Amino acid sequence: MTSEKRYLEDFHQGQHFDLGSFRLTEAEIIAFATEFDPQPFHIDPVAARESAFGGLIASGWHSCCKMMRLLVDSVLVNSSSMGSPGVDSLRWLRPVRANETISAVMVVTDVRVSASKPDRGIVHFEWNAHNDSGEHVAELKTLCIFGRRPSNNQ
Amino acid sequence: MTSEKRYLEDFHQGQHFDLGSFRLTEAEIIAFATEFDPQPFHIDPVAARESAFGGLIASGWHSCCKMMRLLVDSVLVNSSSMGSPGVDSLRWLRPVRANETISAVMVVTDVRVSASKPDRGIVHFEWNAHNDSGEHVAELKTLCIFGRRPSNNQ
Repeated sequence: MTSEKRYLEDFHQGQHFDLGSFRLTEAEIIAFATEFDPQPFHIDPVAARESAFGGLIASGWHSCCKMMRLLVDSVLVNSSSMGSPGVDSLRWLRPVRANETISAVMVVTDVRVSASKPDRGIVHFEWNAHNDSGEHVAELKTLCIFGRRPSNNQ
Repeated sequence: MTSEKRYLEDFHQGQHFDLGSFRLTEAEIIAFATEFDPQPFHIDPVAARESAFGGLIASGWHSCCKMMRLLVDSVLVNSSSMGSPGVDSLRWLRPVRANETISAVMVVTDVRVSASKPDRGIVHFEWNAHNDSGEHVAELKTLCIFGRRPSNNQ
């Protein structure tokens, strides 16, 4: 780990990042879902108990947003990140419930310089998240554009 | 359109839903990204002007969350939705900026009854979002599980 700015050249296939963890309270789950995903099993503990999930679960988008925050804090902060074209695949494998500790890791699966814009490149990576019990709760395959180190694109 | 509860049987391939539209203010873009995606081009209008985007842009996750809200309000409310296993593909094609009106539509691409759990089925669909200028800003291919109409699974 370094506090120097991270560029495309600082990523390599197989590189592993521990992104840390997050926990959601029941109030946070309900507040987020009330704004963005107001389905009964995300906002109503009583209805959730009678649902197939047997209790309140976080919106999958909430988990993604929390993982994004971990990614920004661990990897994208002080980097040449130029955003992302999207997500190749996302799986919500198990529900995320209040007060679980969800730990995320990321592994770099591919790094390549852009053919059309040689000042930048694309890093492909996979996020995986597990709960306290070691159960796999989410898998996300995505990509991010990073600028190259200035000395390498002049 | 009907106010009756929507079940798996109410979806068919090729079915089109107009999900309506959303707009984000600069303050909303900054507040969301400060919590979940604090990259300079999402939270700092000055830094954003000097970025490749030329100005502040919404986090792609923010756009997804707003589209999810449109989907819930238009389709999932009063339905037998049992959540989603994930997303097959997501593309943020153009930045979403403050005060743009982003309109979303959804088309059903496949409907099938679960082989292992005959009380439910999977609906595959595509979301597409366009801005005021008719530019395509996002495409999302996803799936959602719906319970079958009770009379059909006894």
